[in-house]
Amino acid sequence: MIAVLKAGTNSEQRESLIKWFESMGLSTYVSVGEYHTIIGLIGDTSKVDVGLLESLSIIESVKRITEPYKKANRKFHEEATVVDVGGVKIGGGNFQIIAGPCSVETRDQILGIAESVRASGASILRGGAFKPRTSPYDFQGLHAEGIELLLEAKKHTGLPIISEIMNLNHLELFMDVDIVQIGARNMQNFDLLKAVGRTNKPVLLKRGLANTLKELLMSAEYIMAEGNENVILCERGIRTFENHTRNTLDLSAVPALHELTHLPVVVDPSHATGISRFVESMAAAAAAAGADGLMIEVHNDPPRALSDGAQSVTPEQFGVIAAKVRKVREAMGL
Amino acid sequence: MIAVLKAGTNSEQRESLIKWFESMGLSTYVSVGEYHTIIGLIGDTSKVDVGLLESLSIIESVKRITEPYKKANRKFHEEATVVDVGGVKIGGGNFQIIAGPCSVETRDQILGIAESVRASGASILRGGAFKPRTSPYDFQGLHAEGIELLLEAKKHTGLPIISEIMNLNHLELFMDVDIVQIGARNMQNFDLLKAVGRTNKPVLLKRGLANTLKELLMSAEYIMAEGNENVILCERGIRTFENHTRNTLDLSAVPALHELTHLPVVVDPSHATGISRFVESMAAAAAAAGADGLMIEVHNDPPRALSDGAQSVTPEQFGVIAAKVRKVREAMGL
Amino acid sequence: MIAVLKAGTNSEQRESLIKWFESMGLSTYVSVGEYHTIIGLIGDTSKVDVGLLESLSIIESVKRITEPYKKANRKFHEEATVVDVGGVKIGGGNFQIIAGPCSVETRDQILGIAESVRASGASILRGGAFKPRTSPYDFQGLHAEGIELLLEAKKHTGLPIISEIMNLNHLELFMDVDIVQIGARNMQNFDLLKAVGRTNKPVLLKRGLANTLKELLMSAEYIMAEGNENVILCERGIRTFENHTRNTLDLSAVPALHELTHLPVVVDPSHATGISRFVESMAAAAAAAGADGLMIEVHNDPPRALSDGAQSVTPEQFGVIAAKVRKVREAMGL
Amino acid sequence: MIAVLKAGTNSEQRESLIKWFESMGLSTYVSVGEYHTIIGLIGDTSKVDVGLLESLSIIESVKRITEPYKKANRKFHEEATVVDVGGVKIGGGNFQIIAGPCSVETRDQILGIAESVRASGASILRGGAFKPRTSPYDFQGLHAEGIELLLEAKKHTGLPIISEIMNLNHLELFMDVDIVQIGARNMQNFDLLKAVGRTNKPVLLKRGLANTLKELLMSAEYIMAEGNENVILCERGIRTFENHTRNTLDLSAVPALHELTHLPVVVDPSHATGISRFVESMAAAAAAAGADGLMIEVHNDPPRALSDGAQSVTPEQFGVIAAKVRKVREAMGL
Repeated sequence: MIAVLKAGTNSEQRESLIKWFESMGLSTYVSVGEYHTIIGLIGDTSKVDVGLLESLSIIESVKRITEPYKKANRKFHEEATVVDVGGVKIGGGNFQIIAGPCSVETRDQILGIAESVRASGASILRGGAFKPRTSPYDFQGLHAEGIELLLEAKKHTGLPIISEIMNLNHLELFMDVDIVQIGARNMQNFDLLKAVGRTNKPVLLKRGLANTLKELLMSAEYIMAEGNENVILCERGIRTFENHTRNTLDLSAVPALHELTHLPVVVDPSHATGISRFVESMAAAAAAAGADGLMIEVHNDPPRALSDGAQSVTPEQFGVIAAKVRKVREAMGL
Repeated sequence: MIAVLKAGTNSEQRESLIKWFESMGLSTYVSVGEYHTIIGLIGDTSKVDVGLLESLSIIESVKRITEPYKKANRKFHEEATVVDVGGVKIGGGNFQIIAGPCSVETRDQILGIAESVRASGASILRGGAFKPRTSPYDFQGLHAEGIELLLEAKKHTGLPIISEIMNLNHLELFMDVDIVQIGARNMQNFDLLKAVGRTNKPVLLKRGLANTLKELLMSAEYIMAEGNENVILCERGIRTFENHTRNTLDLSAVPALHELTHLPVVVDPSHATGISRFVESMAAAAAAAGADGLMIEVHNDPPRALSDGAQSVTPEQFGVIAAKVRKVREAMGL
Repeated sequence: MIAVLKAGTNSEQRESLIKWFESMGLSTYVSVGEYHTIIGLIGDTSKVDVGLLESLSIIESVKRITEPYKKANRKFHEEATVVDVGGVKIGGGNFQIIAGPCSVETRDQILGIAESVRASGASILRGGAFKPRTSPYDFQGLHAEGIELLLEAKKHTGLPIISEIMNLNHLELFMDVDIVQIGARNMQNFDLLKAVGRTNKPVLLKRGLANTLKELLMSAEYIMAEGNENVILCERGIRTFENHTRNTLDLSAVPALHELTHLPVVVDPSHATGISRFVESMAAAAAAAGADGLMIEVHNDPPRALSDGAQSVTPEQFGVIAAKVRKVREAMGL
Repeated sequence: MIAVLKAGTNSEQRESLIKWFESMGLSTYVSVGEYHTIIGLIGDTSKVDVGLLESLSIIESVKRITEPYKKANRKFHEEATVVDVGGVKIGGGNFQIIAGPCSVETRDQILGIAESVRASGASILRGGAFKPRTSPYDFQGLHAEGIELLLEAKKHTGLPIISEIMNLNHLELFMDVDIVQIGARNMQNFDLLKAVGRTNKPVLLKRGLANTLKELLMSAEYIMAEGNENVILCERGIRTFENHTRNTLDLSAVPALHELTHLPVVVDPSHATGISRFVESMAAAAAAAGADGLMIEVHNDPPRALSDGAQSVTPEQFGVIAAKVRKVREAMGL
């Protein structure tokens, strides 16, 4: 870590600052330039509070050289992490497609979709039981009943299941859910992160709508610091000025995260675009970019007169997408 | 609400859609243009799920005419809401300054600052006991002990107190706290919003880092829909590409919110800028913009050699700011 | 177009507004709701100034039903446009790779790279002669000499060439350049757009750093409205909060633009990411997304000790990328 | 400037890099840490191309310690610049209000508004003759005729005038215009910046919609590097996710720019909000924040039935605003 001191700092202030650094177990080196003095910090700076440091009146700016995340950092853990989800492996060359409806609605719906997506190549079943909605007046999910229906679909198809948790008091309800999902709006709900960190359950952590990759990794670090290293990261689109698509899918996050961390990276083209017609091209693009998995919304057949589904594809469309994704991975030598 | 149908929609599809609208108790009118057909919906559309509607294959786009928030909406509640905080009134012409340290650190610290800010014109004391930090390795607050010290400061000075809650299981701990604060990162932690909505305690709801005013009002609606109408909104800076200040204070949010809602609006220039030198000018600007209150970070005297405080001002600086704010309000005829 | 009137508008105001619309040759229909009155406009609304309309005191909001761009709009021109660049076709199923150095530096450099990228599958040569730089003290290009060297490379290799124009007075210099490029910072330099619109030269128009697809299409419309329909659109990354990559490549822009417009869409993964290691995966992803072409920065061999090139790949790396891109297009059935 | 080297860099690479720095006249110091080696550069680094440096394979990151702008930098020019506009001074304690219509429309309009705003306290007259419009089909201004009408208004009222230039070939037309305005969309139209830099005419430079303060100052540096130091900066709102106002006025830019530069800073609340009802509160807030001037759109009386002007205020409203602004400045001791 490097601290740049303001012009006009006197030697007494400098000494006082250096003593403070040394009291944290860091060694320092000082370089005096024409306009600025620079203090370099050597040692474990992951616990230095940059915000506090920047607040000191004699500091002009601070630059981290080493990332503040340790457990999620590829520098200290070169080998890719493989997360085992009820026997299905993800990461380190293992590619999986998670598919299923946005919300669990009825027994017939979830069983029907589950069988259909398994047949087309999905290896994990998704389904929302607790839905984060911007409006309190929108449908919020079937709650406990939704989890039960998902478990029934798991029993019928053998597919491991994933569902979103919004409240740390619901952890018990998720005991038999294979992957607990933390949604974008809860990416910095630190108490929820700690709570899932105290289990040993695989966690799929979605990137927040306006969060950086570094912030995503700091949130993964919250989970891992409690002892749970089974974290799967998920790029699901970020908020930009473009409003033709619901969000903007950031596919360069895939190679970037693969450099920064050893954790698997999954891409959700359905939420990212919000438009079912774009799911095929974005799923293929994510596969070409090297993603370790995809999460795709599939719904069963709605009244033909009304809908082909906003962000959801039909089971037939899903089959086509899964096949193209496989071909693209082959073309890329993955 | 207006739904624009895609070109090429046939009359059977149109009839099917209209029947669906009527099943929700809405009446409709239809206008056929050269390229598009438009269906207008008349009645209470606040419960129509726009996301679902946009997902239908025959819909090109949807436009709300009436806002989806009801209880927070000025159209249905013309008079400004005055929130009573332990006898101190905020909103509807009542202006208050909330001041205190970022975190409660020691008994001496919080008592000292409390007395000093009361003397300079603060009417509510702030202090963090649970701190949301991006890194799991940064200081997270004194927790229960911090709340106890705040309560002691309240007893000594008579100032009502405000502190941030991060976990719905902590509500009991906040029983004697006068205002419960929901931080920016939890603005869409819907389970926490509902939990504070089931109390009758004043809630200060901070705008999320990348959230719109409409989303802020939908989150207020979550609290109000549970029965608690004592909501104070807080503008605390939004994330932009500018990185010279920590966030960008959006002061036009003040007159905009005053048009959209009857709830009081408080501005936090300390978190918004992250730089203590800018707090005076931004506090004065917020007062000129018509804010119903300010929230300012004040710390007690740190080692002079090191700090004048990043985003915190000293008690002396706070006194100067409070005096200027009063003069600006007079100049504006407020 | 739909205009929503404010509550409390009287019938005299309404009549006055309707007469104004009729004076523009539009017919209207009026729908009176509980809180709002809505006026629908039928006819050619592309010339209605939305900004002016929204400024009227009786208007609450305005919604366009038909897009304000005509010539670039796929609705009025179903067939994909194929742009002919000195015999090389782009768009409508014709895929091309543009490659070459960021800046033309020396004769040897540009001739060497040109031959090398042609051998690996590039069909158009790029090279900057006028460079837009944030700082006046950074290298700004070789100017006229750079164009001459590019023309020499064209003669040697037979590759058509593309270079960026920054000043409308330079048009004559670009007489023999096959594609004139408008950079991201000039996307709304309307006088420059009009000037290239008065030629019949192919124009590659880059999306601005914080511009929407609709704004990009309005800028294309500026060029086309002057008579030049040979416009190629280029997605080159947009500014987001993510700073690990230089910009964020928006690949869903590819299928979105293909729906909205008939113009070809090229993707520039080099500028978008700013990191040569990510160019391969993003080029492959762009191909999977259905792009009509790629623009890739290639430099010749720099001092091995120092560089593998920030955003530029070596000729060898380019060969590998071009081969993978071909395989991905086959896998996608393109 | 500090360059952080990647882990695994060998000493030969390091020596090669250091020689390159020395060839630019810089001296260096090297610090070897546990994971990274850091090279500090001492001397005039304003000409070092950070983009190029970051592109080297052995570099992990680069941090500027000294800003890359020199002439605009307060560190090298402590005293505030006072720009003289036809006898009217702005900056260094001199506060001015620029007022007038968005576009010059007719002789009566511009003469009427000019007299009225002068009477209420405006000291400079604005009026657009060349209008940058997103759509080629919107009104683009009266061009040369608009400039002539402005000059006539100047003659009648004695007010200096300001108008926007969009094309460097128009400079001659602006010979008698007192301030040449560069609009937000042209903030990085570097050829236009250089062209106005070669005159000695005061230039009002507007911040781009998604540009940082540092980029604004680099654009000012472009003008100043050509010899023209009469630059006035203008904050006019930046693009954010909030769409209730047209843009988001960034008032902390005022104290921030006053620290970073000696140039005067003017605020335009009309364009920033796009809503005339918010101009009064934002003008007062800008004055409280310490702006050196305001730019306010005023239109003459439109048909009462239709309009109170979207972003423009009436002459009467302008009078009220100007009076409040004066009172706020007094309250702040300015």
